[in-house]
Amino acid sequence: MELSGGVAQASHVLEIPELGLIGFGAFGRLMARHLQPYFRLLAHDSAEAPAPAEGVTFTDLARAAACPVVVLAVPVDQLPAVIAALRPHLRPGTVVVDVGSVKVRPTEAMLAGLPPDVEIVGTHPLFGPQSARQGIAGLKLALCPIRGRSAFRIGAFLRRVLRLRVVLTTPEAHDREMAVAQGLTHLIAAVLVRMEPLPTRMTTRSFGLLMQAVGMVRHDPPGVFDAIERANPYAAEVRARFLDLTAEMGRALAHPAEG
Amino acid sequence: MELSGGVAQASHVLEIPELGLIGFGAFGRLMARHLQPYFRLLAHDSAEAPAPAEGVTFTDLARAAACPVVVLAVPVDQLPAVIAALRPHLRPGTVVVDVGSVKVRPTEAMLAGLPPDVEIVGTHPLFGPQSARQGIAGLKLALCPIRGRSAFRIGAFLRRVLRLRVVLTTPEAHDREMAVAQGLTHLIAAVLVRMEPLPTRMTTRSFGLLMQAVGMVRHDPPGVFDAIERANPYAAEVRARFLDLTAEMGRALAHPAEG
Repeated sequence: MELSGGVAQASHVLEIPELGLIGFGAFGRLMARHLQPYFRLLAHDSAEAPAPAEGVTFTDLARAAACPVVVLAVPVDQLPAVIAALRPHLRPGTVVVDVGSVKVRPTEAMLAGLPPDVEIVGTHPLFGPQSARQGIAGLKLALCPIRGRSAFRIGAFLRRVLRLRVVLTTPEAHDREMAVAQGLTHLIAAVLVRMEPLPTRMTTRSFGLLMQAVGMVRHDPPGVFDAIERANPYAAEVRARFLDLTAEMGRALAHPAEG
Repeated sequence: MELSGGVAQASHVLEIPELGLIGFGAFGRLMARHLQPYFRLLAHDSAEAPAPAEGVTFTDLARAAACPVVVLAVPVDQLPAVIAALRPHLRPGTVVVDVGSVKVRPTEAMLAGLPPDVEIVGTHPLFGPQSARQGIAGLKLALCPIRGRSAFRIGAFLRRVLRLRVVLTTPEAHDREMAVAQGLTHLIAAVLVRMEPLPTRMTTRSFGLLMQAVGMVRHDPPGVFDAIERANPYAAEVRARFLDLTAEMGRALAHPAEG
């Protein structure tokens, strides 16, 4: 009786899949909160001693890499180095998922650095700790199937269980849209923050919305801003166009109105 | 009986104060909707045949000018001409109120062009037809007492009856804050509109807020944009600063990140 009870318990534990989480910054922590009901989370972070989190076991890189699903939640510019360190510990058939704010370069890095018997899925959750304060149901996530068929199973989990709005796309299409949606928003926010103090007493509703947008991204770690503005191959041309049009409008407004 | 009934009716009619409304564009129409329960509205517009509006009687300039309160709801650049046309018809003690998006130049025009026995109140309702869609209670209005004591009575009406949040200020303080709050918002919105089509599928919450701000001002009549960007004496320097900081950030982002 005692033995069979022990076996049943062990098999129950095994039914909960293990998920390796490489990187435990602000976004890793947000993910852990939403994934811990469904996975045994084995997290590894290069920081000396990450703050404890519910349902998360901290471990070494090798153990986290041995999970059937491994999520890379490190800054985009550290991805090649993390992939190189991870590579010897990955098992055949492992699904590696990244969550970076850009997709072209991380995809290139994963395709170049991961063993060919490992599946690859690119994701970009279009939210962060600020915008996910009231929960993540209904928020968007971009999903790029790169290698293998796991993306569809992962997409179904994200859609049905986490209730995210999953947008299926390619790394190129993603980065082109994000160069505008994120690139411009973060650029404008960064400039407005530099212009502080800004009005708070006499404000219009439209300025209030602009300030809400600024508030939503201003506390992002610097790595996020760098990924969005520097690691997106299309961001520089979008910035240049915004700057040109702003300068052009400034010149037009220096002359009296026509008509 | 019949006579006294007639007198009573006439005196009842006289209890509802008359308000002259000069200009019946989008904002005049919005004002009329909220003022008509409390005033007999006599409107004059230079347009051939304005669309009818509930509780509004269209009349000539002289009749509208003969009301105890006259509200100028014309584009800021037309204000000096309208004041000149109005002047001969105004009665001593009339309260003239403007609703322009800037306050320094309209105040100068009113002080220079209106007879000395007329009171002057500058206002800027910090909302428009878009932002007032769900009603005006709780929205902000900047109030500048210029000449006479009526501003305080008007402020009490706006606060208690229309439930606006009234911000007492001076034309200079108003225009300085608005050069940022409105000047930048409308500049950014105008540039983003020129960059269309913009992403709609993969969007973050912060970009969504930015687009909501754009949607709120993009249908403003061109006169509003001109007033905000050209008729505000501080707008050009704020634009120049925004442009400089954006260019500076663009240059910094052209080099690899430090550290």
